[in-house]
Amino acid sequence: MTGVQVLPLEGIPEVRPGDDLAAMLTDALGRAGGLVEGDVVVVAQKVVSKAEGRVEQADDYVEVILREARSVRRRRDDLIIAETEHGFVCASAGVDRSNTPDDGWVVLLPRDPDASAAAIRERLAERFGQAPAVIVSDSFGRAWRQGTTDVALGVAGMRPLLDLRGTRDGRGYELQTTMIAVADELASAAELVLGKASGVPAALIRGYRVPAGDGSARELVMPPERDLFP
Amino acid sequence: MTGVQVLPLEGIPEVRPGDDLAAMLTDALGRAGGLVEGDVVVVAQKVVSKAEGRVEQADDYVEVILREARSVRRRRDDLIIAETEHGFVCASAGVDRSNTPDDGWVVLLPRDPDASAAAIRERLAERFGQAPAVIVSDSFGRAWRQGTTDVALGVAGMRPLLDLRGTRDGRGYELQTTMIAVADELASAAELVLGKASGVPAALIRGYRVPAGDGSARELVMPPERDLFP
Repeated sequence: MTGVQVLPLEGIPEVRPGDDLAAMLTDALGRAGGLVEGDVVVVAQKVVSKAEGRVEQADDYVEVILREARSVRRRRDDLIIAETEHGFVCASAGVDRSNTPDDGWVVLLPRDPDASAAAIRERLAERFGQAPAVIVSDSFGRAWRQGTTDVALGVAGMRPLLDLRGTRDGRGYELQTTMIAVADELASAAELVLGKASGVPAALIRGYRVPAGDGSARELVMPPERDLFP
Repeated sequence: MTGVQVLPLEGIPEVRPGDDLAAMLTDALGRAGGLVEGDVVVVAQKVVSKAEGRVEQADDYVEVILREARSVRRRRDDLIIAETEHGFVCASAGVDRSNTPDDGWVVLLPRDPDASAAAIRERLAERFGQAPAVIVSDSFGRAWRQGTTDVALGVAGMRPLLDLRGTRDGRGYELQTTMIAVADELASAAELVLGKASGVPAALIRGYRVPAGDGSARELVMPPERDLFP
């Protein structure tokens, strides 16, 4: 039976600023048997940010959030829904206090998560002779729904949206749902094996045919003129 | 290597009002080798609604949307973001014109998607001696992000949220992201094998340990007092 497999990449040590994350992923993928054509590697933003040195000591958490935010959309007590410099709308502008190197430190989002994904992809391609699609993922809350789901902050080697515009259903009726955010769905699928408490920071997804092309996770950001919830 | 498998349930014929969807799912699962403990069955809302007769002829699509909506959150041209009677906020109050039996027909959301999931679960348990978790899924757009991802409208045999409140990370710091909407992530993972155009309306997810309990997808709805985007 064909299908999609989601596999945890285990045994990756705790990532610290300056660590060679791509080498750690290469080791973990080697233990998992390497890459085959069509594989997708999903890496949690937290370890990407740490490896890139996007951590800092912060006496004032809110100050860091406001600095990282392009705009604040809503604020209620210590919950700040903000737009990041990348255009993502999320809690705390993506600034995270958990899983930091020490108390009083925070982890910021990568400056360019697409570039982070592309750099990992290149290194994995060198090692395995196969360039996987790579997704840098993070856990975002949503409007109107409780709980977080993982979404794509950066992609490389794929388009993040599956565009079905013009596709017709079994009866020939044009599909109403025309764009599927498959990069976000892949990130969510990967989260099922990541486990925030268990320390598995990456997953391998096998058997899914990603939309081909060189895309950017910025395509997932709703353009201002279509944003009904500014 | 352990992990999560997402398998399409193929060979399910087109579902029409009054069809015994549980029997169709039973047949498809039988062909797939049956159920094992811990399996999750994800069924697309569209076929659940059709089997339950939640289709109707509609001269005026907007009129149906407004009737199905408890409130309209935003409207721009023919895009209506509405809250359904269940409390879900989505485009067109979930009323869908694609993949309908005939032109001029629309498919409405199930009246009680948790009950739909529970009924399917009971029938599958009778047949296989194993009660899977069951999710009724649909494709929802999101605020601030382009494209749809599949989410859970109904659940049975699981809790939809993984509650990590009080859990600590490797350093003993309390986790900031405390509730994970795993039912939505499972729905999104399933969508990767469903394919709107290919006519596969259900998937089997194996190898994921769902949060135990008797939950409701209503738990995924943000309570009004916490909703920052009314």
